[in-house]
Amino acid sequence: MTDHKILLSEAEIPTHWYNVIPDMPNPPAPYLGPDGQPVTPEALSAIFPPAIIEQEMTQERWIKIPDPVREILRQWRPAPMFRALQLEKMLGTPAKIYYKYEGVSAAGSHKLNSAVAQAYYNQQAGIKRLTTETGAGQWGSSLSLAGSMFGIDVRVYMVKVSYEQKPFRRSMMETWGGEVIPSPSPFTDAGRAVLEADPDNRGSLGTAISEAVEEAASRSDTNYALGSVLNHVLLHQTVIGLESKAQLAKVGDYPDVIFAPCGGGSNVGGMMFPFLADKAAGKDIRLVAVEPTSCPTLTKGHYAYDFGDVAGLTPLMKMFTLGHNFMPPGIHAGGLRYHGDSALVSQLYHEGVLEAIAVPQLATFEAGVLFSRAQGIIPAPEACHAIRAAIDEALRCKETGEAKTILFTLSGHGHFDMASYDQYLAGKLEDYEYPDDALAEALKQLPKV
Amino acid sequence: MTDHKILLSEAEIPTHWYNVIPDMPNPPAPYLGPDGQPVTPEALSAIFPPAIIEQEMTQERWIKIPDPVREILRQWRPAPMFRALQLEKMLGTPAKIYYKYEGVSAAGSHKLNSAVAQAYYNQQAGIKRLTTETGAGQWGSSLSLAGSMFGIDVRVYMVKVSYEQKPFRRSMMETWGGEVIPSPSPFTDAGRAVLEADPDNRGSLGTAISEAVEEAASRSDTNYALGSVLNHVLLHQTVIGLESKAQLAKVGDYPDVIFAPCGGGSNVGGMMFPFLADKAAGKDIRLVAVEPTSCPTLTKGHYAYDFGDVAGLTPLMKMFTLGHNFMPPGIHAGGLRYHGDSALVSQLYHEGVLEAIAVPQLATFEAGVLFSRAQGIIPAPEACHAIRAAIDEALRCKETGEAKTILFTLSGHGHFDMASYDQYLAGKLEDYEYPDDALAEALKQLPKV
Repeated sequence: MTDHKILLSEAEIPTHWYNVIPDMPNPPAPYLGPDGQPVTPEALSAIFPPAIIEQEMTQERWIKIPDPVREILRQWRPAPMFRALQLEKMLGTPAKIYYKYEGVSAAGSHKLNSAVAQAYYNQQAGIKRLTTETGAGQWGSSLSLAGSMFGIDVRVYMVKVSYEQKPFRRSMMETWGGEVIPSPSPFTDAGRAVLEADPDNRGSLGTAISEAVEEAASRSDTNYALGSVLNHVLLHQTVIGLESKAQLAKVGDYPDVIFAPCGGGSNVGGMMFPFLADKAAGKDIRLVAVEPTSCPTLTKGHYAYDFGDVAGLTPLMKMFTLGHNFMPPGIHAGGLRYHGDSALVSQLYHEGVLEAIAVPQLATFEAGVLFSRAQGIIPAPEACHAIRAAIDEALRCKETGEAKTILFTLSGHGHFDMASYDQYLAGKLEDYEYPDDALAEALKQLPKV
Repeated sequence: MTDHKILLSEAEIPTHWYNVIPDMPNPPAPYLGPDGQPVTPEALSAIFPPAIIEQEMTQERWIKIPDPVREILRQWRPAPMFRALQLEKMLGTPAKIYYKYEGVSAAGSHKLNSAVAQAYYNQQAGIKRLTTETGAGQWGSSLSLAGSMFGIDVRVYMVKVSYEQKPFRRSMMETWGGEVIPSPSPFTDAGRAVLEADPDNRGSLGTAISEAVEEAASRSDTNYALGSVLNHVLLHQTVIGLESKAQLAKVGDYPDVIFAPCGGGSNVGGMMFPFLADKAAGKDIRLVAVEPTSCPTLTKGHYAYDFGDVAGLTPLMKMFTLGHNFMPPGIHAGGLRYHGDSALVSQLYHEGVLEAIAVPQLATFEAGVLFSRAQGIIPAPEACHAIRAAIDEALRCKETGEAKTILFTLSGHGHFDMASYDQYLAGKLEDYEYPDDALAEALKQLPKV
């Protein structure tokens, strides 16, 4: 009888994170400072602790997970892998569908993997306070919980549209002791500038990042923590892919194709990087990032140097971007509403190692509801993007008769996204296509390097 | 190194449910019909399928779990047991604290264990439609999901106060295809009678049960499903205690005391009944039901025959009761707002096999917040009752230096209860003491038998 779940013991939690940089076809394009020169570790030290800066730049392939971090990870890791047996039956597909479920973390998503590591390194550096931004609320929740575990105060700038759509995400952060502020806020220069231009502005990740970075840079007791995009965040997330490989090996399987939702890239990097070396060694495996058609960073954006935030406080990163002033529509996958993408993911996509597709909002909720009725779990809207892609692949297999092995990350549950399911079931949700003229506009915004 | 989690394989899911009746000191008091005579299987067949009626009355100690039910249970069972290492450290207690976490089911609580079994037996009996009631929403969610898995339409009468406090529980049920109606409703005689007497009535489990039973009894294609109280429900929940025994045995431990929240008794029965035979055989183990001071059924109620619902549609059950017209205050542990209790739990408490304590609302939320900051998981308000009792026991151990083994059921997560955490953190929640004069009033309500 086929097991529904593939479980590992706590002893099988990876001891090291995997750093993809030494295995990339080309070295990563450096981050640049305002002067157009590569940024130095010193420049980053205003907002990051030394260990994080080192991880951001290291060439080492394997980085040891500190014992206190691994001890906390043991509360929910190894995360289970499921075979979606009921979904396969419902679809009538010969494909095997596996999903790695990161919603078992107390914060409800994979974000806690990096939050715990970042809180730990900041505590070690004597930091008492962290600022951050959050879109869907997954990252803000995770950092609030991790901060509480390591005795660090956390202030979260939450994108206003999510703050309004998801009041209970705020309650969750506050239960764990976090402080939550809707962004744009009147508390920072960056926030005030946006509000002056548009008092009804509903926020974006780019603006919230500006606010959190600005505050951290101006206070010596305060650092900043980012939930995606940067190398060290993707590094911390590689526990997902490393465990997934071990789990599939346990049942003697290996994926033909992997899907992960893509916003800033932490999910894609975390799941897919550990499979990259296999691909480089000749394995026939497709690695596909799935993004929303309303915010099609990889599939339609420019590959160019751009800021990670609205106010231009971050270093310039070479990445796919829709322009750092891009204001995505208020779609419900708040975690995917980001104008840019991880520089590593962008470069690997540019070089053809990773693939990317975009899917429309309604189709993702249709997939989420179908999945929930088969497998029970109600997925986060971000995760519905990967589910949509996996279902489409399984239906193609049904036509061709191929028994492919499909793997996707179910990055989090949708318990704090029920308002969006409400709207979907009531027929009130819409699809948004990224307008082609916006792309020309974005090109004009790009900073000169 | 001590593992945080004790996991079992899917092969270790119990193959049989455990029926406590043959191991009780005395045979259970029979249910009585309107004529004062024990109810017959025929009388129950208007609302239950044959297999459920048989389970309600059987003397067999072990009942085989049907393969299709066990196959569905495999999606989340065996549920993990956790050692609360961070909580122990935070409390500075020599006690060992274990919790069995039922929140891993897609519906978020232990209720899905019985919902799947009941949906299956109804499907086997050709039933196309089920009605039920829900308080906190845990049971209604579970039956909606189980119905969707077995192709049965589900209508849920949801206690109005919960319907208003927890809008996203409704969304969850609807995502799984359930239909949700706030109770008291204008659709049944029972609902109309309550609304005529008090148009602002915010509902009770007793009223919602009346509505669901009335509708099921009047339609031949429709049966009724109850989420607690009855013998077959407690039977289905014994997977909790059976797995827990196996998990503790795996680490060579055995509980000195077990705590479970108590509303209708499905949690208490499910966790504790499998330990009863050990206790009868001389094991020194305390089995403690924990209820709210605002609805202190076991600790203050009368042990007498009473109806399970407001309208008097159910058989008379000998149980602890606060009177079937009792309208508990709108506390946030909606699952514990029930005037009565399982007849089996009641009798075992009456005979001194089980113990019971009552805890006030504010203390339970204080415990829930503390727990969430240590262990991450935000518990359902119902579960906070067991956590409060476990923490108090652990603190007593700190004083006495005893290294007791404490076990409790974390019956569900609180992701749909964040409004109540909001109110608690804002200082807006109150304690409610059950008024002593209500007890005299209840006595007058009791039906003559």
